[in-house]
Amino acid sequence: MGNRSRVIRSEKFRWAGVPALPYRDRPDHYRGVVRHVLLGGGEAGERLTFQTRYFEVEPGGYTMLERHGHPHAVVVIRGAGTARLGDDDHAIGPFDCVYVAPDAVHQFRADRGEALGFLCIVDRVRDRPRPA
Amino acid sequence: MGNRSRVIRSEKFRWAGVPALPYRDRPDHYRGVVRHVLLGGGEAGERLTFQTRYFEVEPGGYTMLERHGHPHAVVVIRGAGTARLGDDDHAIGPFDCVYVAPDAVHQFRADRGEALGFLCIVDRVRDRPRPA
Repeated sequence: MGNRSRVIRSEKFRWAGVPALPYRDRPDHYRGVVRHVLLGGGEAGERLTFQTRYFEVEPGGYTMLERHGHPHAVVVIRGAGTARLGDDDHAIGPFDCVYVAPDAVHQFRADRGEALGFLCIVDRVRDRPRPA
Repeated sequence: MGNRSRVIRSEKFRWAGVPALPYRDRPDHYRGVVRHVLLGGGEAGERLTFQTRYFEVEPGGYTMLERHGHPHAVVVIRGAGTARLGDDDHAIGPFDCVYVAPDAVHQFRADRGEALGFLCIVDRVRDRPRPA
């Protein structure tokens, strides 16, 4: 492990050795979301300045409506749902990309009858989200 | 455009307004590869310190066997192929992740009868690859 090249195998949107973590420490602000830190997490020791995470929202679930100073790069890889960006809702599906600008209010919802799974890449060092 | 939140729609592994670019200016070192800069390219003005690119290797194609100081975070999203990391080959398929450590020799090959498509995230400011 550590700072060596490696492959992390995926099966059914789970990854070998990567735990499903609670999405957030504010359970009153979201529903049915798990978080997987695929690359760039502190423990694995990769020399990445950014983290690649996978979030999965179960049908009917949603992430926190929030804002923060760091931007997000998002790529949907599973299912369908809605991205709220500012005051607007956008239907999203596989491989759509979403850019969340600094301080933009945003939320991801699995509101179309299936799970919504997406990669979300952020700076490793970043500010904390705030409920919007 | 510019530094505003937005969705970039995908259809069949192409993205609205995102051109398919030549992979590299060294056509003698690779075969059948196109590059799409999805997020964090200079022109779009997003405030991202990293770039999210999509590379697609046609069946029988391969990227340059190369090394560089910056690490790669890779997530396969289409097809199947092989990742060479150092002296080892690894079969890869959908949603497998690959970490390429600084200065590791690496190559991606679509050598399993289908195209290989993967996201590759890198620092926006980075050193140039060198043929290995």
